[in-house]
Amino acid sequence: MTRILNSECVALVGKKVTIKGWVNSVRSYGKLAFADIRDRSGLIQVVGGPDVGSLKNEYVVEINGAVRARSEKYFNDKLVTGKIEIEVEKINVLAKSAELPFDLHQPDINISLPIALDNRALALRNKKIQDVFKVQATIVQAFREYLDKLGFTEIFIPTIVAGSTEGGSEVFPVDYFGYKAFLAQSPQLYKQVLTSIFEKVYTVAHAYRAEPSVTTRHLTEYVGLDVEMGFIDSWLDLVKTADDVVKTIFKAVSKKHQDILDEYGVTIPKTVKNTPIIKLKDALDLIYKRTGRDVRNELDMDPEGEREICRWSLEEFGSDLVFVTHFYTKKRAWYSYADPSNPDETLTMDLIGCGVEWISGGQRINDYVELQKKISSRGQNPADFELPYGQSFKYGMPPEGGFCIGLERITQNILNLENVRQ
Amino acid sequence: MTRILNSECVALVGKKVTIKGWVNSVRSYGKLAFADIRDRSGLIQVVGGPDVGSLKNEYVVEINGAVRARSEKYFNDKLVTGKIEIEVEKINVLAKSAELPFDLHQPDINISLPIALDNRALALRNKKIQDVFKVQATIVQAFREYLDKLGFTEIFIPTIVAGSTEGGSEVFPVDYFGYKAFLAQSPQLYKQVLTSIFEKVYTVAHAYRAEPSVTTRHLTEYVGLDVEMGFIDSWLDLVKTADDVVKTIFKAVSKKHQDILDEYGVTIPKTVKNTPIIKLKDALDLIYKRTGRDVRNELDMDPEGEREICRWSLEEFGSDLVFVTHFYTKKRAWYSYADPSNPDETLTMDLIGCGVEWISGGQRINDYVELQKKISSRGQNPADFELPYGQSFKYGMPPEGGFCIGLERITQNILNLENVRQ
Repeated sequence: MTRILNSECVALVGKKVTIKGWVNSVRSYGKLAFADIRDRSGLIQVVGGPDVGSLKNEYVVEINGAVRARSEKYFNDKLVTGKIEIEVEKINVLAKSAELPFDLHQPDINISLPIALDNRALALRNKKIQDVFKVQATIVQAFREYLDKLGFTEIFIPTIVAGSTEGGSEVFPVDYFGYKAFLAQSPQLYKQVLTSIFEKVYTVAHAYRAEPSVTTRHLTEYVGLDVEMGFIDSWLDLVKTADDVVKTIFKAVSKKHQDILDEYGVTIPKTVKNTPIIKLKDALDLIYKRTGRDVRNELDMDPEGEREICRWSLEEFGSDLVFVTHFYTKKRAWYSYADPSNPDETLTMDLIGCGVEWISGGQRINDYVELQKKISSRGQNPADFELPYGQSFKYGMPPEGGFCIGLERITQNILNLENVRQ
Repeated sequence: MTRILNSECVALVGKKVTIKGWVNSVRSYGKLAFADIRDRSGLIQVVGGPDVGSLKNEYVVEINGAVRARSEKYFNDKLVTGKIEIEVEKINVLAKSAELPFDLHQPDINISLPIALDNRALALRNKKIQDVFKVQATIVQAFREYLDKLGFTEIFIPTIVAGSTEGGSEVFPVDYFGYKAFLAQSPQLYKQVLTSIFEKVYTVAHAYRAEPSVTTRHLTEYVGLDVEMGFIDSWLDLVKTADDVVKTIFKAVSKKHQDILDEYGVTIPKTVKNTPIIKLKDALDLIYKRTGRDVRNELDMDPEGEREICRWSLEEFGSDLVFVTHFYTKKRAWYSYADPSNPDETLTMDLIGCGVEWISGGQRINDYVELQKKISSRGQNPADFELPYGQSFKYGMPPEGGFCIGLERITQNILNLENVRQ
């Protein structure tokens, strides 16, 4: 008989079914025993004799039986299948399990993050931990679907590269047949090149940062949702696209995973039609005015500043999101486009959400000569960036820009997880 | 005025429009000049005076003008926009281009592959070269959409790993803060682990093989379309899913890119409802019978064997695809499931299409004890594979298996490209 999912049994009262899954728990009362069987659709209760009572946690089983309605006093409101159960006719143990080192199936698993990470294969069997990755999958899906509709082309770019992308030192060296290569810090240069081919591109790409410090927000290997688009009229096109992408992701997560948001006790961040936009300089002034903390001469916004500017955005505009723009030229990557009306500032933007950075992006230099000057001014040799990067500018690159969303970080932020490693 | 795409002009005869793109070619006749402007939707002809005549190839331009119908004798059947043109009112050069080192826009670009790869950013402006990547994007999209509908979860797995995945020596070492790590040869072990969490998973993952030999079929970094599924009834479930995925990809490519298939002069491979399945041993016997070439004692199928078995499949069944199965245990990866009725053979399969391998996969060992024995028998220490891999088996892994499609290789095969680097 074809296996059906636990959740599908709800519509099959009185019918014989075959289910497959893991034994989530067993409750034995002499001749009568109950077990909860877990599959990807959730739990279902099965009832039987000693054959059920002898099952152990995490055994993998195939069960034949009849679906029957529970009497009302035994309803379990917490389960989709809470009004039914399966009367076991036959159990086939497909795989056994060793005794568990800790209780997996408390709603909040009672182990520390290091233990959970060391025992990742096991900890992930806990529904709440597992659900993080269902949300993550939906985020990526929503991201791609939205951009596909706008005519973007999905690209795949190499991660073994000959030089460090942004000239920094925080790169992992790779031994490439005796040559020294590196793991790409981002798909930045490649996505720019491909803007001169496909105009609008995105990639879901692994990126690598050899930052030796351990924080709750940084990973040495992460997945970036990277966007780059040509023929922009101004950097505000990037702000709009980034804003739309994030709101689309919010909509998809809240539509598909309201149960998981409830499980984590979070609500989707508040957004408004026009997400507030403020220049870094004005933001630093504002922080000084609001808090007395004098950050007016800072060159960037610190974590406390990010929290404060979000408080302001929420109070003044009802928005948990705020774009901070015009970061200083000397602090931003060399490919950033300087504001023609003030070359000390760049046409760049960060999306700050609920007090932390979610997205970073901006308009890029698209003039070949300007680009070469800029690379030289940072003490690097333009020739090292000529192929394939410089070449795409030498032969006509449209005005363009883009942004990157850290996948693990947006997942962390939506579910309000303490640590990005979760 | 909002920019519209060239292809959208067809419906706007008599209207003023703004287009943006690259100058594909210029034809000047004294006071009258024509240029073809290229954007992501294709070419359009613009007509004007010396301002058009003075444009150079690959300049990036914004053009305002009126769409008008061409007289019938000037129709160009090769272009979607062949019955219209734009009368130029204003040209704004957004970026200039250096003089081209070779002619980009011959239908078949007249440069060798090494030159095209060295000048990738430029060569990709050629429509035919660019189209390879449009087909590639569609392949991935079709792959994901099909599996999403079947309840698969998309996963993202690390590529920096502590050990070599399959125990081989062809791995790239990475310096991970002074520790020796490796680039993953495949997401194999992780996707198996995650089968014990989500039952059915897929990932579009970069994988790395340090094979020093250069061939037309191998890449050191490639993208794998990786699938793994639990609770299979038998290895034939894998054959069916792989078969369905490939046919779904064929359908998507032929629906969306018939023009590109025509451009490359290829047709989608012939398929039949039941793709033929033949055991390796029987295939080797058959090759001997058909050709007299005695490969009966070989342990694997060589390239000539792959071509011959496809000839047989096409002649006997009308199918360009054929599954070869039951590869010998000693030649297959250690996690392969031995056939209970003949432990010298494994429940594995390769999909051979048009004479070359497209997919490799099979059922995996899902019993913890059996797995440990197998790892030891290959001279490796099971403890090295315990976390997170072994742990997922220790605590109950369902019968499972999966397969991998090389993205560059399936793109190569569909478009019948000579070299996978294309």
